[in-house]
Amino acid sequence: MRKLRMGMVGGGKGSFIGDVHRKAASIDGMIELVCGAFSSTPEKSIQSGKELYLPQNRCYGTFEEMIKKEKELPEEERMDFVSIVTPNYMHFAPAKMALENGFHVVCDKPVTLTLEEAGELQKTVEKTGLIFALTHNYTGYPMVKQAKAMVKNGDIGNIRKIQVQYLQGWLATAVEKTGQKQASWRVDPKRSGIGGALGDIGTHAENLTEYISGLKIKELAADLGQFGEGRTLDDDGNVLLRMENGAKGTLSFSQIATGEENNLAIRIYGEKGSLEWHQENPNELITRWLDQPKKVFTPNGNNLYPEAASASRIPSGHPEGYLEAFATIYKNFALHLMANLNGVNIENIEYPSIDDGVRGMKFIYATVESNKNNSQWTKI
Amino acid sequence: MRKLRMGMVGGGKGSFIGDVHRKAASIDGMIELVCGAFSSTPEKSIQSGKELYLPQNRCYGTFEEMIKKEKELPEEERMDFVSIVTPNYMHFAPAKMALENGFHVVCDKPVTLTLEEAGELQKTVEKTGLIFALTHNYTGYPMVKQAKAMVKNGDIGNIRKIQVQYLQGWLATAVEKTGQKQASWRVDPKRSGIGGALGDIGTHAENLTEYISGLKIKELAADLGQFGEGRTLDDDGNVLLRMENGAKGTLSFSQIATGEENNLAIRIYGEKGSLEWHQENPNELITRWLDQPKKVFTPNGNNLYPEAASASRIPSGHPEGYLEAFATIYKNFALHLMANLNGVNIENIEYPSIDDGVRGMKFIYATVESNKNNSQWTKI
Amino acid sequence: MRKLRMGMVGGGKGSFIGDVHRKAASIDGMIELVCGAFSSTPEKSIQSGKELYLPQNRCYGTFEEMIKKEKELPEEERMDFVSIVTPNYMHFAPAKMALENGFHVVCDKPVTLTLEEAGELQKTVEKTGLIFALTHNYTGYPMVKQAKAMVKNGDIGNIRKIQVQYLQGWLATAVEKTGQKQASWRVDPKRSGIGGALGDIGTHAENLTEYISGLKIKELAADLGQFGEGRTLDDDGNVLLRMENGAKGTLSFSQIATGEENNLAIRIYGEKGSLEWHQENPNELITRWLDQPKKVFTPNGNNLYPEAASASRIPSGHPEGYLEAFATIYKNFALHLMANLNGVNIENIEYPSIDDGVRGMKFIYATVESNKNNSQWTKI
Amino acid sequence: MRKLRMGMVGGGKGSFIGDVHRKAASIDGMIELVCGAFSSTPEKSIQSGKELYLPQNRCYGTFEEMIKKEKELPEEERMDFVSIVTPNYMHFAPAKMALENGFHVVCDKPVTLTLEEAGELQKTVEKTGLIFALTHNYTGYPMVKQAKAMVKNGDIGNIRKIQVQYLQGWLATAVEKTGQKQASWRVDPKRSGIGGALGDIGTHAENLTEYISGLKIKELAADLGQFGEGRTLDDDGNVLLRMENGAKGTLSFSQIATGEENNLAIRIYGEKGSLEWHQENPNELITRWLDQPKKVFTPNGNNLYPEAASASRIPSGHPEGYLEAFATIYKNFALHLMANLNGVNIENIEYPSIDDGVRGMKFIYATVESNKNNSQWTKI
Repeated sequence: MRKLRMGMVGGGKGSFIGDVHRKAASIDGMIELVCGAFSSTPEKSIQSGKELYLPQNRCYGTFEEMIKKEKELPEEERMDFVSIVTPNYMHFAPAKMALENGFHVVCDKPVTLTLEEAGELQKTVEKTGLIFALTHNYTGYPMVKQAKAMVKNGDIGNIRKIQVQYLQGWLATAVEKTGQKQASWRVDPKRSGIGGALGDIGTHAENLTEYISGLKIKELAADLGQFGEGRTLDDDGNVLLRMENGAKGTLSFSQIATGEENNLAIRIYGEKGSLEWHQENPNELITRWLDQPKKVFTPNGNNLYPEAASASRIPSGHPEGYLEAFATIYKNFALHLMANLNGVNIENIEYPSIDDGVRGMKFIYATVESNKNNSQWTKI
Repeated sequence: MRKLRMGMVGGGKGSFIGDVHRKAASIDGMIELVCGAFSSTPEKSIQSGKELYLPQNRCYGTFEEMIKKEKELPEEERMDFVSIVTPNYMHFAPAKMALENGFHVVCDKPVTLTLEEAGELQKTVEKTGLIFALTHNYTGYPMVKQAKAMVKNGDIGNIRKIQVQYLQGWLATAVEKTGQKQASWRVDPKRSGIGGALGDIGTHAENLTEYISGLKIKELAADLGQFGEGRTLDDDGNVLLRMENGAKGTLSFSQIATGEENNLAIRIYGEKGSLEWHQENPNELITRWLDQPKKVFTPNGNNLYPEAASASRIPSGHPEGYLEAFATIYKNFALHLMANLNGVNIENIEYPSIDDGVRGMKFIYATVESNKNNSQWTKI
Repeated sequence: MRKLRMGMVGGGKGSFIGDVHRKAASIDGMIELVCGAFSSTPEKSIQSGKELYLPQNRCYGTFEEMIKKEKELPEEERMDFVSIVTPNYMHFAPAKMALENGFHVVCDKPVTLTLEEAGELQKTVEKTGLIFALTHNYTGYPMVKQAKAMVKNGDIGNIRKIQVQYLQGWLATAVEKTGQKQASWRVDPKRSGIGGALGDIGTHAENLTEYISGLKIKELAADLGQFGEGRTLDDDGNVLLRMENGAKGTLSFSQIATGEENNLAIRIYGEKGSLEWHQENPNELITRWLDQPKKVFTPNGNNLYPEAASASRIPSGHPEGYLEAFATIYKNFALHLMANLNGVNIENIEYPSIDDGVRGMKFIYATVESNKNNSQWTKI
Repeated sequence: MRKLRMGMVGGGKGSFIGDVHRKAASIDGMIELVCGAFSSTPEKSIQSGKELYLPQNRCYGTFEEMIKKEKELPEEERMDFVSIVTPNYMHFAPAKMALENGFHVVCDKPVTLTLEEAGELQKTVEKTGLIFALTHNYTGYPMVKQAKAMVKNGDIGNIRKIQVQYLQGWLATAVEKTGQKQASWRVDPKRSGIGGALGDIGTHAENLTEYISGLKIKELAADLGQFGEGRTLDDDGNVLLRMENGAKGTLSFSQIATGEENNLAIRIYGEKGSLEWHQENPNELITRWLDQPKKVFTPNGNNLYPEAASASRIPSGHPEGYLEAFATIYKNFALHLMANLNGVNIENIEYPSIDDGVRGMKFIYATVESNKNNSQWTKI
């Protein structure tokens, strides 16, 4: 076998998430970056590629060029898959074109700019039968996998209450007016879509909730905020949840929560026990019980389910972080793709899919609609 | 000067909150228990009083008897005030009678069974000019006072987002069917009123929110849960908040949050900074800032406002707890009453009042109404 | 039965520990302060007593006068016991005189100024058969009692390693030169004895270690520090421990640990599990295991031993603090004394005794001796 | 420029630290693994290399073969440096041979089996002028770098007290008798040297102490433990420290601290402030002050020194862990080597060196000697 070959769309100099994708893809030694359309001009793309030690001829000016040229390369040289790390409005076109030209895809979230695009992309994935992974990276944490496994195995019983939050403070001031690149596209509906913080981080909260609980959100009642002067997209939101099984909950997100860094956290209460997890301290899963003391699980620690134990790379007490969780998405995608290339069937390989992407878009749309109707309950 | 003399209504053997009131009243050495109508029968009341080292003749069978008999005692012997620690339905009558007979009152919350009663009691307090304190005890914590002072002094700027929760798990199973005394009256509308967990702990969350933020809740959208089989009152609730200044937030409470002990917590986000406080770890106030590292304030620690510093009894690092916070309500009530008895004017003595009680009842009513209307926004 | 009557030696205006003793003695409603020799002059003593609502004739100028006069009072009026809250050099004389005149004693630690005095006091206690309690207050915390019970019941197996620390920072600067009363006597060998921080807080660490582990320190190797300019007593110390069963450990204390408030903490490692407790967060006992996840016990929480469960006054999640732990020493002393007055035998009532006091003095002497001999191993 | 080419000695299947080195080397995209002598037989080495997607001809049976064959390869193909990830007894020979054949070296710690070897290796490094990095990986954490910078800039003032610990529990039972590979060589003096836990983790504690404080340990008094039945090397140790500036402290390490995972922690007290850091929660640096509240610094958070800020790869709140810290050693080594290859002078590139290695060996020797002399103070 050989390493998988990755081509990247976006992720040029100054990109935050592009660098994250590259580091995540490289940790497990299964993937190598071979080409990219990193920036909006060929010059910038070449410059970015040079800093990544890529040959100039594999640095393309556009994703169209990349897909076309790579397809013409001999099979043993050309990229296997495309990693799309551009702002939201630039997900759909490269993803669709890649798939239609036989390349597998890893794509950042939210999956597309509109729900319509998401539906079309879903059909393309189904039609081509290629592998598509969405980087809802927080599901890669070992303790998130332990939480999911505990719910699935009935440890905490039927779920009654869920509280999830994703709080950041970096848009508390008008940083988008200072030319900050990360901020400027996120507050722009043309590049972000109809959700602001909602799409950027609210979807992570939604995805995490459904991932761990194994339950779908049935309906929601949302109150969005626009606190930053002149913003046309939400930068804050509070949402009531009703889950398909009758559980109730709250989902709150914000990018104006001053001083918060990346505070994604969830608590899930079942009839027999409850779970609590904090992304900023990801190596603890706090569990509480009807008749036992609080128990705290740790990666590679005692009494884990196999799904969680296998998601750790190093012994207990050696903290794993954001990049490792992100890498687990890439790792599982790579395992699936390698098996695929080898003609091997593989089971129980898990990573967020195009269906998660469509689900996230539906969540965005339902939230915006509920908010327009003064927080009326709205089905997803 | 002398110690103040307290008579108690309720709080007989097996009472949780009666014992708390007695301990809280005694810590600062300003109050002595002199009499009580502790239970529903004279025999039980005498038995309870005996265990409290009271003479038999000061242990009464009913609050009516107590108030009447104490009034007949010489001024230098009779009780100064009544402390009411009964279930909700037994607050109004003794409070009103005590006031009308010239006795000051400390009363547990929620202040009455109905909003109507609360309004009438408010008038009685105003008419008699006597002192009335409501034991929203969580406002007695030094770090809660520091939080309030920081908001008031503009440290965190204009408030934009609030998240408050009060989570317990002790009603996760049907303990009311086991004869557990604390549970049985709390799930009974006749003794609790129209709110279950809502009245019992939701009002604490509401009071804490308005106390620290200095802002009124303008309107709310509520979704109540009844998870315990056969319950007719809520045992869980999730509420969206809109504050008078435009801030938004969530308020969540539950008594079916399995494994939670007494998890009251609040986060308040302003334009310049934010505050976080947890009742189960009450000796830390976590603050976050636009441009400084996280700072953690502690009781009697560095850089406190006077309101917070004066609320501590012991040096920093010597933890103060629930009883001490509760005692601060009694202490401030006592300071006010002593000043009053001495004909001295006293300012800046702060404790929850009948107005907080009426406010709490309005919160209960608005929440129940919103819930009936499928979470429609409802003004308090 | 009636409340017990307490007379106090020391604890006048501005006293820290006197106020703590009074609050601690009053919380459980079993003890009332009836008299005191609060200060060094009758005038100051009367003034202090007045603020405590005591009649003038029970405020004495000296402990000798108090003991003599109280003894002449009718039995139903006079104090039952003396509480001694003076600096170390003023423990021995009032304790001895009280005992010899038939009064029981509660005394602050370290028990005396010298080891010789401690031995003599021990004989007096034995000779008189009266009750003597030493306020090693940290043993009163419910989670400390749970730790002791877990060790005793073999839960963590044979102990191999102990790490204990007591760190404060309040003497990091020369506060004794600013007239600070608490500091000035503590750095003065005439009033403190041969140990500075060693006697003041090191003894607490020693007592806590032997209390929880059930093991005696066999020998120690100590390195004391004098960091504050001009100090003649230690303000810092590091000690290697060898326990009687072969376990090893470290004991560290400091009053120049800048920024530390009252950081007493202990970790004990056995063959099967380990325990960790922090005084500044006293309502958690962290336990770790060979083959189970970390478990965190809480007061009145799940799975406690009776000794711990009975030491809590309020439901789980309602934090208890320093005063409550201190109060537990008084409570158990009071239970013992009441039983004694009623001619009842009582078992399993536990509080620190004169033997703990003598042990603490031996620890001080051994530590100072080891330090003089360049940290040579020295038997206690 | 191009990626640097790494050859590995050790790190075959089942290796813990080899995999860590490979992941750490790959994260930043500057290094590629090109060859290895992974195991003791050519077959195993080839098998390990195959799983790493290496061509068979670059998988060698011995390090001697690897160094010899690689040297014969054209310059544009052959490895640039050797990474040595074998047990302690196999560090010296490959390191020395690599250096003498013109290859730079990254080596795991402790640097060699004996102090003599360390001295000889130091001379070889000096003589060859090649780059040698020792993986004292904990110095790579951003918050460790912030701590060092705060000390260096005088923020906490002159240091008075240090407490450092490194506690693990994985040798609490006799796992070496179960065939556990990691355990078996660590308890074997032939492969580990004269220190057991002392060399394996005690040296990390020593290195971290001197790294952050900028102070050398002048002398120490040590008490080593051998708790595991039949062990001939220490599995536990407690050490008193005296630093060159007069500061005092304790250093404790253990591999029989039941339930501990990888609890490396340090507290440093200066005249103006103090620092606390825990490896298991590495993204917080807790600081305490004479006259300010506790402040908690975070990677890429507010108010960091440049040395700390530049050590983070991702925004604040996105946790970085053990692998990232380890990667920072490789990154700085790579930056230095790249500059070197480009003939560029580079300053302020920091990573542990051969001098740290020699220092660690001296620490091991002094500790063992002190222990033999019943904890007599011994100079390093």
